Amino acid sequence: MERIYFSFPGDEQLADRLTSRNKAVRGVMEVRRFPDGESYVRIDSDVCAKKVVLVCRLEKPDEKIMSIYFFSQIAKSLNAATITLVVPYLPYMRQDKLFNEGEGITSVAFAQLLSSMVDEIVTIDPHLHRFHTLKELYSITTIVITATKSIADWINENVNNPFIIGPDNESEQWVKQVAQKCKAPYNFLNKTRHGDKCVEIVIPEKPDLNGKTPVLVDDIISSGKTMVEAVKQLKNTGIDAPLCIGVHGIFSGNAYEELKNAGASDVITTNTIQHPSNRIDITDLL
Amino acid sequence: MERIYFSFPGDEQLADRLTSRNKAVRGVMEVRRFPDGESYVRIDSDVCAKKVVLVCRLEKPDEKIMSIYFFSQIAKSLNAATITLVVPYLPYMRQDKLFNEGEGITSVAFAQLLSSMVDEIVTIDPHLHRFHTLKELYSITTIVITATKSIADWINENVNNPFIIGPDNESEQWVKQVAQKCKAPYNFLNKTRHGDKCVEIVIPEKPDLNGKTPVLVDDIISSGKTMVEAVKQLKNTGIDAPLCIGVHGIFSGNAYEELKNAGASDVITTNTIQHPSNRIDITDLL
Repeated sequence: MERIYFSFPGDEQLADRLTSRNKAVRGVMEVRRFPDGESYVRIDSDVCAKKVVLVCRLEKPDEKIMSIYFFSQIAKSLNAATITLVVPYLPYMRQDKLFNEGEGITSVAFAQLLSSMVDEIVTIDPHLHRFHTLKELYSITTIVITATKSIADWINENVNNPFIIGPDNESEQWVKQVAQKCKAPYNFLNKTRHGDKCVEIVIPEKPDLNGKTPVLVDDIISSGKTMVEAVKQLKNTGIDAPLCIGVHGIFSGNAYEELKNAGASDVITTNTIQHPSNRIDITDLL
Repeated sequence: MERIYFSFPGDEQLADRLTSRNKAVRGVMEVRRFPDGESYVRIDSDVCAKKVVLVCRLEKPDEKIMSIYFFSQIAKSLNAATITLVVPYLPYMRQDKLFNEGEGITSVAFAQLLSSMVDEIVTIDPHLHRFHTLKELYSITTIVITATKSIADWINENVNNPFIIGPDNESEQWVKQVAQKCKAPYNFLNKTRHGDKCVEIVIPEKPDLNGKTPVLVDDIISSGKTMVEAVKQLKNTGIDAPLCIGVHGIFSGNAYEELKNAGASDVITTNTIQHPSNRIDITDLL
């Protein structure tokens, strides 16, 4: 079936490269806001009977969800065969249980909403913690790709004798895979979260780095507090300035500056979210 | 059935007054954003078997739709009997046909989305143009209230000898009702829209005001271009500075300043959307 790739503003380059790599057609669409802030979407290509792929970085989901919804409604009205959402970073994955009474499990709610809009999603390293696969959340086809090999390749090319460190046990799946692909040793710190912006990191015992380069690896760097505390605690034990690598660099507020000021030797991310720290390209994975 | 009123930030006063007027219970909820921009909602009151009413000004629908969705999911999980959305200004009503190929009829799409979230909506003077009732769009119960009597009462108290003028034929339903309730004469101008921000207004023949005060009435003042052009064209024919009244004052960009600078004697709106021009209270209507 013929594929046609569309992109949201800012994601044109990613869609262009996916189009040429898949020898597909590049679709033209218009996404903008009316002066009153309402969303406007127009599909300017023939999508009839085609596999429609919308490339959309979604780290600010609330700003884009209406446009995704209108896009899917229009594509259906124009008789698209299927609609796929390529969403390099999948949002709303962290509220995966009722932490307090009266809350919602928004990872489930968001999955139900997206499932009602498109037929398939393709994403990179979703934050699966209490849920173990996206199939537990999504009723549509989900294709999950991991960036751990790309990260391991980057480390092998750029870091001498890496020692991979996870800031908490939630990072285990990424840390273990990266370490194994680098053939490097790894270890974890202990984290306790006291709120959105307050985390406590304890180093169980000083890791014996034996001259190796400490590399902190996590899936998401959002407020950056976890990474900042991990860097500070490592430095307190006399360990060299660690390199920080995140799959998804959200960097809310001054997170990026705070992390560099805390003493990270460098901060590196993949381009699932566009950011100056992007150094590892995920296009080939998609 | 017991009613419980919740409000979004900014709508507390409106919800408080509806609560006391209906001798209902005032619910407590938390709505905020995580540092990464994702929405967080928590319901902190017992809603089991109650008629849950969420008061939510929705002139920026994209910013709030995820929170409304999460609120409704949580209320359902807590066994609320029904969920009503009090939305003084109903957005996405103006894209009510395919103006160009590849567009969506977003008034229908938005209605389907809201209908999947709540059981009932209550709104004031929705912009019904090509659709004639909300029942054509919404599959849930819709309660429509008109502010025309409140506007007519305000005019009767504040304007000597009003002559009501509609800037275009779309405003007929509001202009006619206001004029009849004021027992005032009325007339319409001719509008041609060339884009979001470009409208042309033609005065068919100079209305004979015979010493009366010109009062322009429309449902929505958004970019303000329609009202600005109407004021300018009226002034060009030598008519006194008209008073401008809108039900819903969106005032995108500098619309409010432009309208005052164009020569309106005053600009008055209801408080369906909070704005310095609010002078007509709609609480009693709801």
